[in-house]
Amino acid sequence: MLNFDFHMPTRIVFGKDTEKEIGNLLKPYAKKILLHYGGTNIKKSGLYERVITSLKSNKIDFIELGGVVPNPRLSLIYEGINLCQKEKVDLILAVGGGSVIDSAKAIAMGLYYEGDVWEIFETRKDITKVLPIATILTIPASGSESSFSTVITNEKKEMKLSYSNDLLRPVLSVINPELFYTLPKRQIANGVADMISHIFERYFTNTKNNDLTDGLCEATLKTIMKNGPIVYNDPSNYDAWCQIGFSGTIAHNGSLGLGREEDWAAHKIEHELSAIYDVDHGAGLAVLVPNWMKYVYKTNPDMFVQFAVNVMDVKMNYSNSDAIISEGIERLKNFYSKLELPSTLNELKINEENFETMAKKATKFAYGKEVPLGGLKKLYWQDVLEIYKLAK
Amino acid sequence: MLNFDFHMPTRIVFGKDTEKEIGNLLKPYAKKILLHYGGTNIKKSGLYERVITSLKSNKIDFIELGGVVPNPRLSLIYEGINLCQKEKVDLILAVGGGSVIDSAKAIAMGLYYEGDVWEIFETRKDITKVLPIATILTIPASGSESSFSTVITNEKKEMKLSYSNDLLRPVLSVINPELFYTLPKRQIANGVADMISHIFERYFTNTKNNDLTDGLCEATLKTIMKNGPIVYNDPSNYDAWCQIGFSGTIAHNGSLGLGREEDWAAHKIEHELSAIYDVDHGAGLAVLVPNWMKYVYKTNPDMFVQFAVNVMDVKMNYSNSDAIISEGIERLKNFYSKLELPSTLNELKINEENFETMAKKATKFAYGKEVPLGGLKKLYWQDVLEIYKLAK
Repeated sequence: MLNFDFHMPTRIVFGKDTEKEIGNLLKPYAKKILLHYGGTNIKKSGLYERVITSLKSNKIDFIELGGVVPNPRLSLIYEGINLCQKEKVDLILAVGGGSVIDSAKAIAMGLYYEGDVWEIFETRKDITKVLPIATILTIPASGSESSFSTVITNEKKEMKLSYSNDLLRPVLSVINPELFYTLPKRQIANGVADMISHIFERYFTNTKNNDLTDGLCEATLKTIMKNGPIVYNDPSNYDAWCQIGFSGTIAHNGSLGLGREEDWAAHKIEHELSAIYDVDHGAGLAVLVPNWMKYVYKTNPDMFVQFAVNVMDVKMNYSNSDAIISEGIERLKNFYSKLELPSTLNELKINEENFETMAKKATKFAYGKEVPLGGLKKLYWQDVLEIYKLAK
Repeated sequence: MLNFDFHMPTRIVFGKDTEKEIGNLLKPYAKKILLHYGGTNIKKSGLYERVITSLKSNKIDFIELGGVVPNPRLSLIYEGINLCQKEKVDLILAVGGGSVIDSAKAIAMGLYYEGDVWEIFETRKDITKVLPIATILTIPASGSESSFSTVITNEKKEMKLSYSNDLLRPVLSVINPELFYTLPKRQIANGVADMISHIFERYFTNTKNNDLTDGLCEATLKTIMKNGPIVYNDPSNYDAWCQIGFSGTIAHNGSLGLGREEDWAAHKIEHELSAIYDVDHGAGLAVLVPNWMKYVYKTNPDMFVQFAVNVMDVKMNYSNSDAIISEGIERLKNFYSKLELPSTLNELKINEENFETMAKKATKFAYGKEVPLGGLKKLYWQDVLEIYKLAK
């Protein structure tokens, strides 16, 4: 186990009707806020009305910026920064899923940065101050409600980059699983695939002696794999949504990776897909992860046997470890298929045309200096290309 | 699953040599601190010297208050409050185990309370301000390094009471498992018994639909049960101590009980023993917990079957649930015996003499208005008496 330094100060208010308390909950932090959201869904569902009622009754002034799209765009972030500067808000309240929260995080860090906020993503420079962020989660998936990360798409450059800093953790996140009842099936499936991947990126490691975090990862994976298909088929099952909503937060708040070298290759390989093709992040992961596993498992077969046995319930009496691992990966693919997620790039209408370009962008080979991906196995652009080919 | 509101802002700095960073870590919080500790062990081990070297090189001024004993005493807390008032410190650094940290917490909350700090324990009134606390953990057991609780003994009144408030969570805790190498065997065993109980108090519940926290509890229990005997027999096993040290923190930071009704009867029944007899808290729990289980399991047998199967690895093919549960409890007793912990009150030299007095104090019957213990099954003083009798 490696040394670690962990600070996760996000307050989580979880359960029925909790969004109605938002005004009261925000009072210690803010007199004036930016209400940030996506499309018209929150208005149709009545959530918007409940939020502004609570803000008004607690005398919290607010301005609004809607229009966040999946794979949130840099252009709207510039607009948000200008608005926050002009209106002098104390906090950004993101009402939405990961895209809205990530957009809020980028605005919050751009506000105090003298240059172009995109520079922070490209140069990974340290930041020292952000505007506080709070969230009301409407899609359990990204874990952004308590993570220290944001992922933004620069639409002009066709680049999708992530940036992480502890300052980006929201001060408060409100999670009411009832808000998930109206999610489209596709979004449910994508969210489940995304949260599972957040755990995989931490679970598959070469670091030894992780009994506790191994067990916590496995328990969370099993919870998601049990309850994911339940909410997919019965989207107003409160109890199952509680497990999915809570797991999605745990999956990406950092606690499951403590003391372990993490991987993150699969996420970066997927980001190149969605930067160009605008595919759903979760669907991209469902296609790529099993193929990433097939490509890398020989680097640390024990870890993949453990996954097959402890998570996918493969019996240890298979003839050899390759067979156990292969059965584990097959069962994972079966799990994705229960959620009607794709299993090939072809199903996502992605052909070989851009494989090499994406592979070279993923490892930054395209930008001059290659940085191999991954912790478990270092992947260069040729490796990434092979994984895209395996996935076609 | 129940609604919850969770805020655990303690920063955890974990691993080898981390205590040498304490001065640097405390700089953002304090210019002058109270260094609070127990006996001379930290001086003999060289820890004291490393801490003050780091404080001095970071120009953090400090005063000292040693002398905390197991089951920390109210008298020293009064002394600490006076000292902090006089010397105007910004933070208390507790270097020790749960007793030292709990003592620091009581000083930290007493400092801003106008009356006698003991009133807060007796009346459970709300507090609004405490002095910040940081810790360097030397005994993994109490979980006080990130919990919101403190347990103090009023030696004059022969009362041991706990008090909980989110303000009591330390701002920072440093955990270097190497510091545990020199713990006496008895203290190792007691610590392991204590952290297991912290999970039991959350795990055994009547709340339904807790897949995630059930799994997290079970994973943490299994980690402790695997690694506890390893460190007991090989006290300089760093990897195993990492698992125990980290598990002890997770066990009592509140995360394992989120959305569940908790129990806490066994802890309170044990507190009455150690208020009068000054027995080790962990040893008292090892005796009482299996007997508490025998007395209460029929209220919710499913939960105890789950424990037997998922934690104690009892096969489901026993003839009936009573047999499975009974085997689970036997295996738990076997686990305690691997750590040479007692299994009867008799071994602790406690006879029936005070059973009724302790039972009546445990439920506050002795103080006029009885408050039954427990979440899983409500226990009145006659029930507590039966548990003491079962344990004799």
